[in-house]
Amino acid sequence: MKSYLDALMHTRDLAALIVAGDESANPARTYLSNGARITGGIILKVRGGAPVLVVNAMETDEAAKSGLQVLSYFDLGYADLVKAADGVRAKADAALWGALFRRFDVHAGRIGIYGTSDLSVFTAFLREIEALYPQYQFVGELDLNIFDEAYLTKDADEVLRIRSVAARTSEVLRETWDFIASHRADNERADAAVVDANGDPLTIRAVKRFMRRALFERELEEHGTIFAQGRDAAVPHSRGEDADILRVGQSIVFDLFPRESGGGYFHDCTRTWCIGYAPDAVQRLYDEVATAFQIALDEFEVGMPSKAMQEAVQTYFEERGHATSRSTPGTTDGYVHSLGHGVGLNIHERPGLGHMSKDTLQHGNVISIEPGLYYPDQGIGVRIEDLFYIDARGELVNLTDFPHDLVLPLKG
Amino acid sequence: MKSYLDALMHTRDLAALIVAGDESANPARTYLSNGARITGGIILKVRGGAPVLVVNAMETDEAAKSGLQVLSYFDLGYADLVKAADGVRAKADAALWGALFRRFDVHAGRIGIYGTSDLSVFTAFLREIEALYPQYQFVGELDLNIFDEAYLTKDADEVLRIRSVAARTSEVLRETWDFIASHRADNERADAAVVDANGDPLTIRAVKRFMRRALFERELEEHGTIFAQGRDAAVPHSRGEDADILRVGQSIVFDLFPRESGGGYFHDCTRTWCIGYAPDAVQRLYDEVATAFQIALDEFEVGMPSKAMQEAVQTYFEERGHATSRSTPGTTDGYVHSLGHGVGLNIHERPGLGHMSKDTLQHGNVISIEPGLYYPDQGIGVRIEDLFYIDARGELVNLTDFPHDLVLPLKG
Repeated sequence: MKSYLDALMHTRDLAALIVAGDESANPARTYLSNGARITGGIILKVRGGAPVLVVNAMETDEAAKSGLQVLSYFDLGYADLVKAADGVRAKADAALWGALFRRFDVHAGRIGIYGTSDLSVFTAFLREIEALYPQYQFVGELDLNIFDEAYLTKDADEVLRIRSVAARTSEVLRETWDFIASHRADNERADAAVVDANGDPLTIRAVKRFMRRALFERELEEHGTIFAQGRDAAVPHSRGEDADILRVGQSIVFDLFPRESGGGYFHDCTRTWCIGYAPDAVQRLYDEVATAFQIALDEFEVGMPSKAMQEAVQTYFEERGHATSRSTPGTTDGYVHSLGHGVGLNIHERPGLGHMSKDTLQHGNVISIEPGLYYPDQGIGVRIEDLFYIDARGELVNLTDFPHDLVLPLKG
Repeated sequence: MKSYLDALMHTRDLAALIVAGDESANPARTYLSNGARITGGIILKVRGGAPVLVVNAMETDEAAKSGLQVLSYFDLGYADLVKAADGVRAKADAALWGALFRRFDVHAGRIGIYGTSDLSVFTAFLREIEALYPQYQFVGELDLNIFDEAYLTKDADEVLRIRSVAARTSEVLRETWDFIASHRADNERADAAVVDANGDPLTIRAVKRFMRRALFERELEEHGTIFAQGRDAAVPHSRGEDADILRVGQSIVFDLFPRESGGGYFHDCTRTWCIGYAPDAVQRLYDEVATAFQIALDEFEVGMPSKAMQEAVQTYFEERGHATSRSTPGTTDGYVHSLGHGVGLNIHERPGLGHMSKDTLQHGNVISIEPGLYYPDQGIGVRIEDLFYIDARGELVNLTDFPHDLVLPLKG
């Protein structure tokens, strides 16, 4: 959590860290600026000191909502720097960094670079500051960087926000279920289509539109929700074809991972639905996935290596005759992905729950658990995913309050 | 436009370019992958060759919609590379880049790096690939990089999409105007509040909620719309306070810049509204801004330096006694920003229309023109902004089809 940053900077021997960035969504900036709705700006944190936020003069009012000390580019003489740089902003930014370091008494040492930005400008910018400021070492981190590590442990405010997203997401699952259930099967059609009261077929496009509206009403937004049927359901990241008509007896994978509108915390969950009835082959895979899900929960113990849960699930699936990404790397049949991942300001965070992960499971983690089985040639995919919080007592608390039921009966 | 890329690579002496990135929104990846809804992946383009898209095996179906050659990480032996890198993805990525270059016969030379990503991982990654591959020079660009330059000129497909966003945005302006107009002024209240039929005051929150829904219905999304009244209107990037009640006779700056839902092209426009009536001081500033807007259009000529329009507007405002960012750098009173900017997959693109810009205005540019005047101490801000396309005949075509009217009369 945020309060660990000084300790994490100490471990990394960082004199300061800087969160750079352009107008791209920037989780590290969002994290440190406490949700102020700024579109740009940089943050300097000297070890042991509070973060300082530098923004365009036009954004100082909004930036003040962060509770951080706010400076404007103008305060730092940026107008003159741009002129001296002949209008090249990235050159002026390089001079600005120097001014900022001097102002906050960072005269030498290792400076960690974080944030999200355009890589072309940044690559040239990095060479520029390295040439300008030999007294600093600008450092990146290949793996588990300081923010990844801080994100691992959610504080009480973060858990509240994630719980709220989770509760609203569960409502959307409920409404989407009810919406589909209000339809009927047209048994006269050869394709066993699901149709509305007028006999018009229900498409994935219509379901997604319904779902988006339900999210919108709750101040959530989504990009890339998976609602995939049949063969598409068996390709884990296929999002489903908008024009496809819903049909009874097909496995539908519905993976919903919305976040707070305008950028913020995510929730992540998946249900597999079979409209009307479940064919034996689907039911069998579903039962195995449900068992695997329970095996993962039973295996859990706070402090354990996260891969132990994945290995228990892989062993179970392999015993049942399924290929896994451990037994058959690259397989597209069977259990082809990892068991889950951390969720927060990023949809995929640490800890990783793959069989090669070196992470451990700790108090404060928010993790998804999502075993699945996929058989593209049979047109069947099944996945069940809930989001969990590891509480202070070291227990897994399920945040996704919606049943795992497979068969979605039609009432229409 | 995209078809210029080989020529632009030639100018820069690039043997190849690579668009890197994580799950961040990545305009360069969006641009080259023709709208395929992938959440990650990298693109290699060898000079003279077609771009190749590398994605997670689970995203190959979706990636195929790009029309590009698609490879999966697995095809490139990524599983073994991750194992060899002891699970550190960024290290495995470094090895993957080498495999990709070899596969496409890039054996030496300058390689341009583009895309959007986490800077901590990237900083470490860059040092890694520089050490691994001394035969390549990995280059960034401080200013007007190859994508900035390609984006300058929109092709017919892009103009169609931007026109569609513009038309839908104009509808939202109309609906929001009508929504406010359906209210009435409560003359018994000391604050001259705008109220609904029940006498409940109309807040900025309610207007924004209405506007968001109107966008949503048209498959548009917004982050950070400005709807700011009084003093907030006089601070160009203040977004307005949700809890504020709309009042008659106050200048309201409404700057709406939505994009296609899920990431895509933007539109950008601003109106200044005064509900019920315009006080003299507001009307006077509005008239000057409207005149400045016309001066900019009159000044326009294809091929001209873009700063000439800004200078004409600055000269006019200065003659009228207003400070400008040219006459008084850092001023917060008067005309405090540039005249406009390019708009496309990014809300702010080149050409820049500031007085220090070195850009010229060319066929195919899509630019905003947005003069304004701001007096925070008087609680007045005025801005008018439309989006324009410079067509093949070299004429400015206005894409924002909504009147500039200042006074919004109440009908409720």
